[in-house]
Amino acid sequence: MSRTRDQAPSARTTVKQTAKRADYETATLYQIIDEALVGTVSIAVDGQPFALPMMVARIDDHIYLHGSRTSRIIKHLTAGYEACIAFMLIDGIVVARSGMNCSANYRSAVVHGKGEAIEGAEKAELLHQITLALIPGSQGDYREHLPAELKATSLIRMPLNEAACKVRTGGPNDDKDDLDLPHWAGVIPLKHVYGEPIPAANLPEGIAKPDYALKYPLRD
Amino acid sequence: MSRTRDQAPSARTTVKQTAKRADYETATLYQIIDEALVGTVSIAVDGQPFALPMMVARIDDHIYLHGSRTSRIIKHLTAGYEACIAFMLIDGIVVARSGMNCSANYRSAVVHGKGEAIEGAEKAELLHQITLALIPGSQGDYREHLPAELKATSLIRMPLNEAACKVRTGGPNDDKDDLDLPHWAGVIPLKHVYGEPIPAANLPEGIAKPDYALKYPLRD
Repeated sequence: MSRTRDQAPSARTTVKQTAKRADYETATLYQIIDEALVGTVSIAVDGQPFALPMMVARIDDHIYLHGSRTSRIIKHLTAGYEACIAFMLIDGIVVARSGMNCSANYRSAVVHGKGEAIEGAEKAELLHQITLALIPGSQGDYREHLPAELKATSLIRMPLNEAACKVRTGGPNDDKDDLDLPHWAGVIPLKHVYGEPIPAANLPEGIAKPDYALKYPLRD
Repeated sequence: MSRTRDQAPSARTTVKQTAKRADYETATLYQIIDEALVGTVSIAVDGQPFALPMMVARIDDHIYLHGSRTSRIIKHLTAGYEACIAFMLIDGIVVARSGMNCSANYRSAVVHGKGEAIEGAEKAELLHQITLALIPGSQGDYREHLPAELKATSLIRMPLNEAACKVRTGGPNDDKDDLDLPHWAGVIPLKHVYGEPIPAANLPEGIAKPDYALKYPLRD
């Protein structure tokens, strides 16, 4: 479902600092959101900023947040106010010959938009799809949602049509005059590695570790 | 310098959702910030939320943000407006027998406060300390800051006296009725691993990989 994001960035998604690192490609945006699993959801309430890291699932060109119906951020988004959601993956520490040129390799995305609360049969189905977006390949391994769970949980959908990414890769960008200094320079790579699945202490005997856990994330 | 955070959480740092996961210990807060390296800095401008992931260094009981003097967030903080800074580390995917009980193991922190712009000799020294906070043990491996760099860079200090953490660990919390279902349940652990340092392509011969890069993060 990836498509080229052909619209120009909006005023608030135009990257201004180190604009050379801006990336407005849809494929980049999708990869960052999918790998991050969590976004920091920011809202403004009475002129004050509030932010909370939340699980974020992407399905096609929307992202979905879910949470308790009583949560402040969920209530705020349900009421139709703006949110700004940021995603960040660090890929390495960049060591330069000067402190100011030290940096990090990273992939970040920032999404602006208003949420839409989803209810009814669509909510139940999308909550199921969200689990599969966060744990790909795990279909068939859960019981059905209970009415009380659906009642207590709100689901918010947000479009991805106002978003921008920034990506930094590669080695340090030192000043030309610093290249002969006797200081080490390079990148310390950071990898995010999923390990051997740990069965629940109360798992009945005879239930093998599934492929979706052994090979997480098991995408097509 | 760790001390027990003996003050009660403020109204806006009292954890309300899944309050059993709240952690108001200073040691927890410091560990999360130090390991995260990056925080999502949120501000409210004309009633709209704006968020940006930024490198965040902790020195004692303050955090420091730096950036271009022309950056919107830096200008906003320099003007004395509130910020909310969120940190998030994911430690695993929690697979339950029901979609609604699936979760993530994580450590998060949220800091509220106003920044203070630092100038003069203190700024130069703190910018150096920030590099060492983000790349521990690398002292002596950089040239001095240049006047033009110091002029172009703003430094913001924020206190950590209004902050709260949330921590989830362990296996799935399934409903009692679900424990005998024939579905796998457990945790897929996520580890953040620093790899072998990669020297810059233009590094002169004979400069060995330093311990602070080989053993990153090289804390005391």
